[in-house]
Amino acid sequence: MNQLPLLNALRARLGEAHVLVGGDLSAYERDWRKRYHGRALAVVRPGSTAEVAEVVRLAAAHGVSIVPQGGNTGLVGGGVPDESGDQLLLSLLRLNRVRALDAANLTLTVEAGCLLQTVQDHAAAAGLLFPLSLASEGSCTIGGNLASNAGGTQVLRYGNARELCLGLEVVTAGGDVLQGLSGLRKDNSGYDLRDLFIGSEGTLGIITAATLKLYPAPRAQLTALASCDSLAQGVALLGLAQRVAQAGLSAFELMNQQSLALVAQHFAQLRQPLPAAPWTVLLELSDHEGEDHARGLLEALLQQALGDGVISDAVVAESLAQSQSLWHLREAIPLAQSEEGLNIKHDISLPVSAAAGFVAQMSERLAAGWPGMRLVCFGHLGDGNLHFNVQAPMGVDAAAFLREQEAAVNRVVYDAVCALGGSISAEHGIGQLKREELAARKDTTALTLMRAIKKALDPQGLFNPNRLL
Amino acid sequence: MNQLPLLNALRARLGEAHVLVGGDLSAYERDWRKRYHGRALAVVRPGSTAEVAEVVRLAAAHGVSIVPQGGNTGLVGGGVPDESGDQLLLSLLRLNRVRALDAANLTLTVEAGCLLQTVQDHAAAAGLLFPLSLASEGSCTIGGNLASNAGGTQVLRYGNARELCLGLEVVTAGGDVLQGLSGLRKDNSGYDLRDLFIGSEGTLGIITAATLKLYPAPRAQLTALASCDSLAQGVALLGLAQRVAQAGLSAFELMNQQSLALVAQHFAQLRQPLPAAPWTVLLELSDHEGEDHARGLLEALLQQALGDGVISDAVVAESLAQSQSLWHLREAIPLAQSEEGLNIKHDISLPVSAAAGFVAQMSERLAAGWPGMRLVCFGHLGDGNLHFNVQAPMGVDAAAFLREQEAAVNRVVYDAVCALGGSISAEHGIGQLKREELAARKDTTALTLMRAIKKALDPQGLFNPNRLL
Repeated sequence: MNQLPLLNALRARLGEAHVLVGGDLSAYERDWRKRYHGRALAVVRPGSTAEVAEVVRLAAAHGVSIVPQGGNTGLVGGGVPDESGDQLLLSLLRLNRVRALDAANLTLTVEAGCLLQTVQDHAAAAGLLFPLSLASEGSCTIGGNLASNAGGTQVLRYGNARELCLGLEVVTAGGDVLQGLSGLRKDNSGYDLRDLFIGSEGTLGIITAATLKLYPAPRAQLTALASCDSLAQGVALLGLAQRVAQAGLSAFELMNQQSLALVAQHFAQLRQPLPAAPWTVLLELSDHEGEDHARGLLEALLQQALGDGVISDAVVAESLAQSQSLWHLREAIPLAQSEEGLNIKHDISLPVSAAAGFVAQMSERLAAGWPGMRLVCFGHLGDGNLHFNVQAPMGVDAAAFLREQEAAVNRVVYDAVCALGGSISAEHGIGQLKREELAARKDTTALTLMRAIKKALDPQGLFNPNRLL
Repeated sequence: MNQLPLLNALRARLGEAHVLVGGDLSAYERDWRKRYHGRALAVVRPGSTAEVAEVVRLAAAHGVSIVPQGGNTGLVGGGVPDESGDQLLLSLLRLNRVRALDAANLTLTVEAGCLLQTVQDHAAAAGLLFPLSLASEGSCTIGGNLASNAGGTQVLRYGNARELCLGLEVVTAGGDVLQGLSGLRKDNSGYDLRDLFIGSEGTLGIITAATLKLYPAPRAQLTALASCDSLAQGVALLGLAQRVAQAGLSAFELMNQQSLALVAQHFAQLRQPLPAAPWTVLLELSDHEGEDHARGLLEALLQQALGDGVISDAVVAESLAQSQSLWHLREAIPLAQSEEGLNIKHDISLPVSAAAGFVAQMSERLAAGWPGMRLVCFGHLGDGNLHFNVQAPMGVDAAAFLREQEAAVNRVVYDAVCALGGSISAEHGIGQLKREELAARKDTTALTLMRAIKKALDPQGLFNPNRLL
């Protein structure tokens, strides 16, 4: 179909430089894990909310669909175009202004294309904390974080991206602008539109700006590593830590032995301060009184855990540098996995009370079905969120294992997750990757409601079609 | 219209005893503040989710609309039928089972008709805390709390009802049951239907059960009262308290001089430990270490505030009994207001940074327009939520003042609230009371989206018509 009139109208509105056609557009058209590679009619880069609305109106008038994109760091193929060459890729990266910081109200209003790191830095410069924190923070955008309801390492204390947002500005499928940049902690004036757009992966509207919650920065953050003989002990340690430290507990990360073995193998320079154990936990306290207070609390907690037989060993970081090196161990796991080769990934959540039983059951089932497979299990136990990845047996071609076994492994894992009331997507979203899985497994009434909402807010199917739903 | 076939079908399904027609139904048909008095076709009291779904299907088949009701403690007329005599009043009070407590997962699953107090008690019996707390907790239901996204006194630390709910079971307008009773802290598998139903005031679906978040109970709660010369100082004290105590700060309640003067006048037996001041603040710390630790922190905070000139006087409760008597002062304000007579009430929220300017501006405007009027201003400053009530001048008939001046006073107040980015309903909702105000003042794009969602989820207009929207 001839879309020259649309492209010319877009050029007239945005300027030639911001309507990219041809050349190497792979930075926009391919997801960073290189699982999905589409082709866009054009990449458009509006510079303001008004320009986003204009693009939406023009696209609607020409019957062309739009794929919104932030930093293109998603893990489920939700932000890249399909292969038709008919879709507009709308990059939000030029909407990158910090609009307002209100220290007394503890809020920050930013445009969608701001990098997460920029948001964090802006808060920190005012002595405040924006607590969303994840591996891609240097390149992901806050708009993408909200569209996918990102999680990360401090959810236990501060919640997901959803809980950190007070208001949104959104361009609707009608090309209107929802003026919802509220900095209010309480507002019961109508339906919760904000939370409907958050996590909708660009299928209901285009988030152009957000008002975010800030917190006073903690005076100290102190990290420890502890060894557990079983996952049940890890869960018991979590309960103890929550009772002792309550909101002070800002991270509780779990790593199985295989995870740290891969780190040792591929990153030998990272010192592992504890002997190998079936499970290792990284705890972090964020303290408003100071490091001495945090240390006293953390040491008392670990003493009690040792006395109760909940942990077998522990080490508390002596310095910020040591703290960071403990975090590096945790952060190195996905990288070590990549070094080891492709694997079958699951980003699942479960009730915390079901986690140990799930892992025990799965270890047995998967070992029986795929002898020699290696379980790389790590993640945010405090949120019930496990990254539960299956690596090919030693010596087996990883790519072939992924290609041939993924569907069957997924079936076993997701069947168990669903039977236990868990979710097949804890923090990465649905996108293209899990769209069919969602359609097959989600409560049918929920699917009916979701489809009705999609149709109500985007009757033309303009926004990110065939993603999520 | 002859609805005998519907009534007979309901009786056959629910039993005669649970389809009430005639007799004194005022407990269901009239709101507790006696502002709204409707008449129902019948009051139906289903005993299970399946029975609720059956009622919905029967009502839909007969073209009869449904008004869901919990404890009938709402403040905006959202839970009583209209005067037509054509609506079914669906009481959730018989759905009052506690379904499951999962201590390791810190969740409690309850049916919608459970009293809030019952939910709190159930958590407490397991050594845990369900933090939602409000004046009507002995008679309101958790279903109503969620339908109206209730706030209360601990929002600063724990959030509104919305933030305390992980999953919902809902009967849809199609008579289906949404199985969404998730106990997950992270779940990115599709649109956030939960938050759409929360706060929708029974207009989108009928909440029949919920999975709620619990917290470890704090070891100590310690309360203090402090005097401020200006509201700007109150805001400064809030900032200081948030920096010093962070999540430990569980309440920050504001009372102006007039509020406490009415309490002194009508409840002379309640001792007021500080001399009258322009503004009084009630602070509460919830501490996981113990009372000594809390006292140290609170005293250091108040010392610093005195040194900084942010407060002029303060007293820390010496015992739990003293703590409670400080709370009684705060809780007595609405009661003292009732004793004084009817008044023009506003449940507003503002960015905290705008609160002092708003009150200064309004004091002047209202005093000029209504000489002698008395401002009774109190509420949850930590959430930017003020109950900003205008009492008739001394000696003026309160009922006449309300009747004749309410519209004009509302206009002045709401104009200023909206100009400052505030909300005309912070925690009480819209219902009948503020429906026209919402239609006139809400962002038009938001209204368009809300109407589209209502039509998509309830195309027949079955649920609570002419409420909220």
